[in-house]
This record gives sequence, C-alpha cells and structure tokens, in this order.
Amino acid sequence: MAGSSFGTLFRMTTWGESHGPATGVVVEGCPAGLALREEDIQKYLDRRRPGQSSLTTARKESDRVEILSGLFEGKTTGTPISLLIRNEAQHSSDYDALRDCYRPGHADLGYAAKYGHRDHRGGGRSSGRETAARVAAGAIAMRLLEELGISVTAYTLAIGPVHIPETVRSSDTEILRTGRQYPSGMPDAAADREACAYMDECRAGQDSAGGVVECRIEGVPTGLGEPVFDKLDARLAAAVMSVGAVKAVEIGDGVLAAQHRGSENNDAFLPPESGDTPRKSTNHAGGILGGISDGSPILLRAHIKPTPSISLPQQTVDRDGRPMELQIRGRHDPVIVPRAVVVVEAMCAAVIADALLLNMSARTEDVITRYRKG
Amino acid sequence: MAGSSFGTLFRMTTWGESHGPATGVVVEGCPAGLALREEDIQKYLDRRRPGQSSLTTARKESDRVEILSGLFEGKTTGTPISLLIRNEAQHSSDYDALRDCYRPGHADLGYAAKYGHRDHRGGGRSSGRETAARVAAGAIAMRLLEELGISVTAYTLAIGPVHIPETVRSSDTEILRTGRQYPSGMPDAAADREACAYMDECRAGQDSAGGVVECRIEGVPTGLGEPVFDKLDARLAAAVMSVGAVKAVEIGDGVLAAQHRGSENNDAFLPPESGDTPRKSTNHAGGILGGISDGSPILLRAHIKPTPSISLPQQTVDRDGRPMELQIRGRHDPVIVPRAVVVVEAMCAAVIADALLLNMSARTEDVITRYRKG
Amino acid sequence: MAGSSFGTLFRMTTWGESHGPATGVVVEGCPAGLALREEDIQKYLDRRRPGQSSLTTARKESDRVEILSGLFEGKTTGTPISLLIRNEAQHSSDYDALRDCYRPGHADLGYAAKYGHRDHRGGGRSSGRETAARVAAGAIAMRLLEELGISVTAYTLAIGPVHIPETVRSSDTEILRTGRQYPSGMPDAAADREACAYMDECRAGQDSAGGVVECRIEGVPTGLGEPVFDKLDARLAAAVMSVGAVKAVEIGDGVLAAQHRGSENNDAFLPPESGDTPRKSTNHAGGILGGISDGSPILLRAHIKPTPSISLPQQTVDRDGRPMELQIRGRHDPVIVPRAVVVVEAMCAAVIADALLLNMSARTEDVITRYRKG
Amino acid sequence: MAGSSFGTLFRMTTWGESHGPATGVVVEGCPAGLALREEDIQKYLDRRRPGQSSLTTARKESDRVEILSGLFEGKTTGTPISLLIRNEAQHSSDYDALRDCYRPGHADLGYAAKYGHRDHRGGGRSSGRETAARVAAGAIAMRLLEELGISVTAYTLAIGPVHIPETVRSSDTEILRTGRQYPSGMPDAAADREACAYMDECRAGQDSAGGVVECRIEGVPTGLGEPVFDKLDARLAAAVMSVGAVKAVEIGDGVLAAQHRGSENNDAFLPPESGDTPRKSTNHAGGILGGISDGSPILLRAHIKPTPSISLPQQTVDRDGRPMELQIRGRHDPVIVPRAVVVVEAMCAAVIADALLLNMSARTEDVITRYRKG
Repeated sequence: MAGSSFGTLFRMTTWGESHGPATGVVVEGCPAGLALREEDIQKYLDRRRPGQSSLTTARKESDRVEILSGLFEGKTTGTPISLLIRNEAQHSSDYDALRDCYRPGHADLGYAAKYGHRDHRGGGRSSGRETAARVAAGAIAMRLLEELGISVTAYTLAIGPVHIPETVRSSDTEILRTGRQYPSGMPDAAADREACAYMDECRAGQDSAGGVVECRIEGVPTGLGEPVFDKLDARLAAAVMSVGAVKAVEIGDGVLAAQHRGSENNDAFLPPESGDTPRKSTNHAGGILGGISDGSPILLRAHIKPTPSISLPQQTVDRDGRPMELQIRGRHDPVIVPRAVVVVEAMCAAVIADALLLNMSARTEDVITRYRKG
Repeated sequence: MAGSSFGTLFRMTTWGESHGPATGVVVEGCPAGLALREEDIQKYLDRRRPGQSSLTTARKESDRVEILSGLFEGKTTGTPISLLIRNEAQHSSDYDALRDCYRPGHADLGYAAKYGHRDHRGGGRSSGRETAARVAAGAIAMRLLEELGISVTAYTLAIGPVHIPETVRSSDTEILRTGRQYPSGMPDAAADREACAYMDECRAGQDSAGGVVECRIEGVPTGLGEPVFDKLDARLAAAVMSVGAVKAVEIGDGVLAAQHRGSENNDAFLPPESGDTPRKSTNHAGGILGGISDGSPILLRAHIKPTPSISLPQQTVDRDGRPMELQIRGRHDPVIVPRAVVVVEAMCAAVIADALLLNMSARTEDVITRYRKG
Repeated sequence: MAGSSFGTLFRMTTWGESHGPATGVVVEGCPAGLALREEDIQKYLDRRRPGQSSLTTARKESDRVEILSGLFEGKTTGTPISLLIRNEAQHSSDYDALRDCYRPGHADLGYAAKYGHRDHRGGGRSSGRETAARVAAGAIAMRLLEELGISVTAYTLAIGPVHIPETVRSSDTEILRTGRQYPSGMPDAAADREACAYMDECRAGQDSAGGVVECRIEGVPTGLGEPVFDKLDARLAAAVMSVGAVKAVEIGDGVLAAQHRGSENNDAFLPPESGDTPRKSTNHAGGILGGISDGSPILLRAHIKPTPSISLPQQTVDRDGRPMELQIRGRHDPVIVPRAVVVVEAMCAAVIADALLLNMSARTEDVITRYRKG
Repeated sequence: MAGSSFGTLFRMTTWGESHGPATGVVVEGCPAGLALREEDIQKYLDRRRPGQSSLTTARKESDRVEILSGLFEGKTTGTPISLLIRNEAQHSSDYDALRDCYRPGHADLGYAAKYGHRDHRGGGRSSGRETAARVAAGAIAMRLLEELGISVTAYTLAIGPVHIPETVRSSDTEILRTGRQYPSGMPDAAADREACAYMDECRAGQDSAGGVVECRIEGVPTGLGEPVFDKLDARLAAAVMSVGAVKAVEIGDGVLAAQHRGSENNDAFLPPESGDTPRKSTNHAGGILGGISDGSPILLRAHIKPTPSISLPQQTVDRDGRPMELQIRGRHDPVIVPRAVVVVEAMCAAVIADALLLNMSARTEDVITRYRKG
C-alpha cells in the first residue's frame, strides 16, 4: 500500500527507477482467456517512446516489453501478468551534480524529506520513466476493453497557448486517431504547425511548455462506477492526477460547468434509439452522473505543467540549505504533452477495466445466473 | 470495496440513504489517545446544515451526531469510531412522482442500470446527504491535524460569474476564516452581496447555480504523500472529485500552469528561515511537487456544477424509455457551494491524516527508534 | 485497515466495545436485489445469545438488530448495510478492580502496550461481544448463499475431553442441524449429557473448559478461491483464527493429513454423476485442493481455548508491574464453545460469499456475456 | 486483489508459473535506509533449493535472485523492490500427459473450473515453485527484523510418524538453528536418521510423506497485531495456510489448549525482570493473547500433507470426465517438509514486519513526536 499499486480487481503494481536496471509492472486480476501478445503491449509503448520528433527528448530508449508470466498459449491465465522493460545504458554521471541539490519543480526535496535515502539519478522513482510501466499495464486493459467494444482515445488539445479548433474536437473518433499522429499529438495540421513553432521559440529561450490532453471513452456500458468514494470520475481523477506533471483534471464541461446555470448544464434524457438505454440530448456531464456512467462518451482533460527541467539558470539550495544557481544539462523533453497522451489513455483504460470487473457482482440475479449455469 | 470506504490507515466507511432511518460513518485507524468530544464533530456538521440562509434549502435537519464506539474517558482508544446521525422525518411521498423517471443531472439512470433495485427517494445513496457522514469523519481527522499545527481552510471562491477579489484570496488564513461566514461562504462582503443578488436572479428563473470552492492547507510537513499512484495530489483529487457535484479539481495554479513556461511555473528554492526545510520563492505548485508535499501551503480548487434539481420543466424519459416532462418540486439548495465548503475541508483533512499515518513507517531509522524506546 | 474490516468484495467492518452504548457492523458489497429482513439476521443473533442454558453466562443480552441502511422495500440496494445492536445496561463498575491489572489469558496487556489508552471494561474491543457484529454480517452472507443452494453447518465436536461419536459426525447435515440444539451444541444426546456433566465439574472447581467446533459447507461450486495468498483455506483460516479464543484451525483431515502417506491422503477423482464436475472417492482434502474448492463439502475445525475468566484466584501484576492475586467476579461463560458455533458459521459464510463475488470476474467470457446482454 | 498480494504496509506481490520464463516478487512498503544485498536474499533461497539431499527432488534449480529496483548504494529507498528469479530450462514435455487430466491431490480441477484456460505444466501458478518468490520477499522482512533484534526460527518437528524429542524442542534458538541442518530439517541427529529411514521406505513404496514445521519468533515487542480481524494469529494463520500443502495451523498449545481447563491454560503474569513488560510464568498462549503479542516467544506449527505427486498408479478422470489410471513420472520431492521450513519462516517474517509497520501509527503521542522532531 506504499503507493505503487492501482486498482481493486484489475490492479497494477509498478516498480523501477529511471537509472536502475529495469522497470516493470505486475498486473493482477486480468480475467483468464483473453488473447494477448507482446505486440499488443509494444504498440502502446512505442507511442510513448521518445526521439520521434523535435518535440521530444533525443534520448534513445527502445522500451522492449517482455511478458514473464500469466500467459499460456497466447491467452491470459487469470494469474498475475509480469511485464519487464530493461532500461538502456544510462548516463548516470550526468546527474552527479544534482546529488546534493533540489531541482525546482521536481520531487527531489520531498523524497529527501520523506525517505532520507534517495536515488537522485534522473529522479529515481519520481521519473517520468515510471509511466512506461503504466502504459504497458494499460495496454492489457485496452485489450479487454476491445473485446467489449469500448475505445479510449486521447490527443493533445493544447500546447502552451495553442489550441486545436473546436470543430476538430468534436470529430469522430477515427478522425482524431488518424490526426493525432502529428508530432504535437494534435489532430490538426495547422494547430500542430503552430504548436511546433511555439516549441521552437521555447527551446530557443532554453525554456519549456505545458499543455492539455483530452480523452474520450466510447462504448462504456451504463451503470459503471461505485457510489460515494469510488465514483467513476473520482477514480479517473485519481488515475490521471497521479501522472507526474498533471495539475488539474476536468470531467465533461469541468471548470465551465461551475459557471453555468442548472438549466444549461443538465442534459435532457431522450428515448433510446436502440437497446434500452436512454440517450442524452447533450453531454455536459461528460458521460458520468453522480459518479456512475450514463451511456454517453466519457470526456476528461488533463492539464499538464511545463517540463521542470529547463536549461535556463535557476535559483535553488543544496541539501545543507545553502543557495546555489543550477543549470540543468542533459536531454529533456521540452514539452511532455505529446508523450503523455498515451499515458492518459492507459490510465483511463485501467480505470474502466477495474470498474467493469467490480460491477460484475452488483446484482444478485447476475450472481445466481453465473453459478446456476455452472 | 464497494466504494463506500476511503483511506488506507485513516479510513472512513460511510453508510446511509437520504430517506432511511439514519446515516453514519465508521472511522478506523484514528490513533489512540486523541482527545475528542461530540462537540468537536458537531461544530463541523453545523456548518454543513441547511436552512442557515436564503442560499440553502429550507429543509430542517438537526444532524445531531452520536459517538457509539472508540472513545473512553474523552480520548480515542485506537479502535473504530462509529458515528450515528439520525435522519429527521422525511417527506418521502414527495418523491413518489420520481419513482419511475430519471431526473436530468442526477444518478438515477446509472443506479437503475447498475443495481436494478434502487431507493429512489431523494437520491437514496447518491444524495448529498451522504456528505454529512464525510464531514463527521473529517472532523476527527481535523482534531488530529490540530495536534500537529496543521490547518485546513476552505471558502467560496466563486458562485456563477461572481468571484472574490484576488487580494482577498491571498489574505491570511484567519481573515478568510472570519470572512467566510457570509451566506455565500465568500470571505468578502461585496462579493457576497453580489453572489446573493445573482442567486436571487437564478431562483426567480426557477434555476440554479454552481461555483468554486478553494482550500488552503497550512502546516503540512515536507515529505507527505506516496510515490506514483498515491501521490498527495492524486489522493486529494480522488477525495474532492468523489463529492457528488464536483466536475474539476485543480492543484496550485492548475489549469493555468499548463499555459505557462517552465521558467514561469517553477518555484525557486530559498534557504530555510528556521528549521531545516528550504522555502520557495513562489507557490505555483500549490505545495505539492511530484506528488509529495514541499512544505508550502497546499492549494486546491473544486469546481462544482449547478444543482441539478431545478423547478423549470425538463425533458426526460420514464423507465420504459417513454418521453415525459418533469417538474421537480420540494426544497432544494439553489446552489450547493456554500454547504460544500465544509465537505471539501473534511475530505482534505482525511487525506492529510491518512498521509501522515502512512508516512510514519517510511524510514528504517524511525522504525528502529520506535521499538528501541519500548 | 486497522483490523476491523474483513473481506474484499463482501466486506464487513465491525465496531463497538463491550460496555459502550452499542455494537454494530457495516456490510459493503452485498449484491442488490437480495431479499432480506431483520428476522433473517435476528435468528442467527438469537443462537449466539447467552443465558440459554447452564453452559452459558446468565447475563441478559437481548441483542436486537436494527437495519439502518442498504435496504429498500425488503431488498438490498447494493449500498452499505448498516446494522446496529444496542448494548444493554452493563455493570461497568464490576470491572473497576480490573482497571489497573492484566487478566491472565486476556488481551489486557497487549492493548495497554499497543494503545496506552484502553477501555478496560469487559475487555472493551477485545470482548467476545464483538462477535455479535460478525454474526449479524454473516447472516447476510448466509442469505446470499441460500439463493445459491450453499449451506454452512457448524456444531460442537468436543468439549474438554468429551467428543461426539464418529458415526454422528458423518451424519447428514439435516440431522446435525436438528441435533445440535442441545445445550452443548453437540448433535448427540449422550455426548451432550457427558459434556454437561463435565462442565458441572469445571464450574464446581471454579474453572472453565475449551473445545472444538466443526463446520461443514455444502453446495460450494468448484473453482472458488484465489491462487496463492487468498486461497480459500487461507481465508477460512484467517476468518476462524480471528475469533478471539481459537488456537488452531484444521482443514479436512488437518493434523492427521501430516501423518499419512500420499497414497492414503490423495482423494481419487471419479466420473461425474450428474453435471460436469468430477466427484472424489474420499474427502481427506476437506473440499479444497491447492486453495481452490473441489466440489466436495468443505470441512474445518476450530480449536477453542478454555474461557480465561475463571473464579479461581490467579497470579498477575498491576500496571506498575507489582505482583497481585486476582479473583475475577461477574458472570462469564464457563465454556464458550456452544456460543461460538454460530460465530464460526458466520465467518465461514462471509468467506464463501466473498469468494463467490471475487470469482465473478475470473473469465473473460463471463465478462463479455455480462456486458453483451446489457 | 486477485490473490497474489499479501500484507498491508509491508506488502509482497508474487508472480510466475512453474514452467514460465521466470518467477518473482515486488515488495512494497519496505522502509528506506535498510541495508540490503543480494546475498541477504540468496541465502534464504539457497535453503529452499532442491537437490541438497535424498529427501528432496533431484531437479536442478539454481534460483539466483536479481534485485531490479528499490535499492541505491546498498540501501533500500522506500520504493518497490522488484526481485527476479529466472527459471531454468524445464522439461515441459514431461507434462504433456497431464494436459487433459486432473492429478489427485493437486489444484488442476479447481483451476480448470475457475479459469477455463490453464497452464498445466508443473501446476503452473499452483506449483510449489511459487514459494521461491515468498522466500525472497521474506528475506527482506528478515533484514528489517534483524535491525530490531527479532529472530524467526523454523525447523522440522515431525516427518510422518517420526517426531523430535520434547527436550530438543525446548532448546535455545541457536541450538535449533545449528541442528536443523540435517537433511530432514530436524535439529536432532537420531530423529533425522529415523526420518530418513522412514522416507526410504516411502520411496520404496512409490509413496510420499507429510510432516510438521514448527516456528518460534523471539524478540517481538509487546502490543503487535491489530484487533478483531487482523489479529496477529489470524495473520499468521492466513500466511502459513496459504502455503500450498498446509492443512492445519496451531498457535501455542493449539489443539491441546482446547482440551485443557482455564486454570491449566492461562499463563500467569510475573513482574518484569528488566524493562517494563511483565513476563509470563508459562507460554501456553504461544506469545499471542487476544490477537496481540504478549512479549513471550511466538510459537506456531504448520501441518503439511504428503506430496500428492506419487509414482503409484492412481485413479482419476480426464477433462471429459472419463475414468483413467494415472502414473506420475518426473522428479518430485518425496516429502516437502524440509524445503517448507524456510517458506514458513519467510511468511512469518513478512507478517511480523507488516505488524511492526502498522503499529507505528497506533498512538497519537507517537504521531506527534514524529512530526514535532521534523
């Protein structure tokens, strides 16, 4: 319970430091009989990998995943799935200068105060590298969601002051998926060019930028989420806020909802078109009412701070509290938003998978049906 | 694990429906030897109680708390503290018309889809009444925090389009605490008047409003929070997003941080003034870096949607999917923000208490010290 | 997580001290739509109630249960079920003499060392009274099991040196259920008489006795239990050993299995008689193989120590470590075994209910079926 | 929560199948600053390794552990410690004959019923190989206990009908530790010879044997364990019963306690010799009263069934329910007791470590002291 596990039934436990020999994750609770190959995981890791554009660090990380357990003849067995990603040779000595000082915007001070003993190389456990393990675990959740026709689609909504147009935002999922392959992760050529130009300017100023990732989850059955503390939006907020640089999470209209009147914000219910779930005339709620999915697409946004590692000289102190000027060297993403897109997707997929499994025992009649047939 | 428990070591389990005989909470893990009286809890419940101004429902709820266990001779014993709040006589028949229809903006549809069998009266378990139990549990957390010199202070930042001035927002905590006693919960007389006028307008239009609660936590030791998934901000986001009507949570600069450059957003570290914890020149991070407290005040904002129960006629469907027009009667808060202030405080207090206890075993040297002295 | 909660999906959280105002339990995770009345719970509490024979304490405890939440129109709603049992007026002053001394065989010393501050009256939280809450929660589990044709039947196997005959032990469940209504809980008239005579002798000597409770669980589907740490037998052992006075737990042949050879202890599999689950020729395993139910009846035994509160003078120390002679007054069960029978049943029922719910999400095909039909 | 995690604060999550590429464990919650080397873990794995005598299988398993995370400059960092043990090349084809049949005494049927899809090779996840991961995790717990002067010592008490003498059983811990290096794990030369002769006889008859492991834990502070469900004995019972072949667990006098009178079973308290914890005149309780440690040595026994894999022909069915005769080939331990000794030690160490950490936050005064000094 020391903070490296997430989920109740579909549960991931990640481990690994930035400059240790490897990073990885154990996924418990994935149902048996799910077809799964290393490629299913690798393709998500490849989306997170750096070095794919001028917007990301030039560090080389091949991030090959190895499945060590829980799989037999191409299908999951219901037992823990252990995934291993070896770290590449690291330039740990780059970090020697940081051993005894606290980088602004980083967790260095907090870890030192908490643990006394810390691995300062590249942030150790607080490194963004930890998200590789989340992505690998999320890829397994994604396989389960695919079987149920649920899709999770994230993309870059904004980088610094540059936003994608509203019209693009309301496109079909397929268009967003194709479009987001631009370097910025924005599903719009013009916005992407603008974002790249903005990033050039940041880099020229030895500075960094932040931005916004938006995620849309389609095909979620009505009725997912637990009342009170494990509301679906509370779980999504926890999942997404736990990604290192996220400073705000919105569901549906989010911040705007608080400024609207009830008559504007309420979504009217309409008769079902097919099946037996009512539709909604609008989706201000972002697919979640009272913490339970309402059958509409789930929408959320993660607001991500600018990369704290910048080349500009910064004021800080060493561990004896003496003031010093710090200039961070090494290769860092000038903006992490494009690489964070797949991380947000992975965390959302894990939350939905967990909610699906928890919901299996919500009704006595389902329990009776399950064991009567046996 | 069905969603009604929160926390790892300081853990609350709430129960109770809006129109059942009672609501309550069991608090596990509160350390032994903490002085606690019913008044310590009652004073927080009193702040949540409706009927205190024209901004809240006229329903009468006395909300008297009874401590049923875990206390002996005025001090906690370390065993579960059970708190009981009897519900007052309710007009359940008011809800007969709602039995078979789904109110827009409410969880009715989700509960029906999830459970099949639901208590439709007043929202049942999804009612805002459930927050009384959270407030009672949070009051116990608050007692523990007091012993450590930690304060949690929330207030209304905005109602609809009305905000308090920036200058007020940066006031000392004591000023905010005194000021927030206005009906709106805003610590500013002029803003409060404006908010009340805005609410009069909403009510006249049979409509409702939303708003923003801001919370400041002072005195938190550096080093609280667990890495990765149980980051302090992830726990706060989960806690606050789990309050029914919250649609967005921000930490520190939140949404704005995503628009700034690294050089603007990073807080420089300065030598300690006293003690051995470095200070920060600014607090864009809102007191949390990499998920761990950094010694500065923790700042968060909860964006709350407008009350979904409005008197204006609304379009919806019944449970057979047939369209119908709904007009909600009964007494509802036209804006829940003023009453939500103490709920946000309670949840934040619970998160901090849990983080304090989890952190007790972070270092081997502390473990050795604890058992060597015994 | 401070020890008062049990179960993962079907989860009980008990609270209450022996001499506090009430005791109770919150049951989370009971599926919605289960018919449940207070009588369903009361009948189990009545079996635990003292004063029903000369073998139990003469204390009067009516133990009326009140359902405070989670029920609507006679069915569970899927939300937490809160059960309250008011304590009767207690003779707390009986315990004044015990305030500053440690009773042999009791938890007094441990609680003092752990918490510093303890409720010494009647053992406080460590009192056997706490088991009333378990029985109430177990009764709800039992209702769920009934729907699935699963029965849980415990009875007294031995008191002190007196055992029931082997032939009785292998009787049909119905015979055991009828028979166990003798004061000793033994389903055999002769053994009961012998046990009562033995207890008369113990009481005459101001002494107490222990004994053995055996439990048989029939109708359990094959395949329940989780691999590795949450094996069905590990969960049962935890459940039963957590009952205050239990000092040993056996599954199937238990202690004897360790003395047999593989060829004696292995149960051969036989073709199914009906359905598709193979039968076993014998049941040395007690219905659990490798931690998973094998379709045969589950058998376990709890070995219960003699009541530690005896009237004979005993040697102990006060809280300053000074030696003293203690003579315990008040009304105590001379043997707790007859009243423990229903407690063992309740805990077993809770374990099986939890295992049933956890197993709902074991297979991908079941998950697909559940959401495809929706 | 699918059964592969154990512990609340000191928490291990194991993974890996018998014939997969590797097995391993992630240990969360180990405090920072604990000196730890691979040798500290390897020495426990070496004790579990087969092929060390005629009593164990001749399979070659080198079981080299690799620490992949959570360690920096020879000390733990407080973050998850990932341990990897590569499996050696396995003769999976040995198991082809078992693909479609259920071995008596094994979990095969249960896994098939539960998951549908199972890895039949060598028992897959239900293999005794899984205990290697437990031993590795337990070795870390043991390092922590060493710092606090707590020792955990297990040894073989019986194999089949052969017991060690009572006088040996009450020897000093050091004598037991030295003595248990005989092939049987019995700390007595004569008993070991007798056990080996008995095993020769079993092997000659193509049969197997069971036995008993006893464990003594010394130096445990008074006051460990949580009330009610997480009593120290309940946790130990769960831990030990979760080891595959264990069929009974006793604490202290165990089964015998149930046959004694209160006056015989109660341990009198005596004035402290040094420090402030009272001593006990006897230790029938096995160091635990009411679920809380009482300062005396903790004593438990695990009763282990005979190895189910025997060479004698056995009656079983295939997965279509057709009867068949099975003759198991391959190399199996004729008795697993000697190799289980270190597994019992490891599980006990993990339970004590967890209880130590949970107890850190039991008292308000300790919480205040911890944060005041900061």
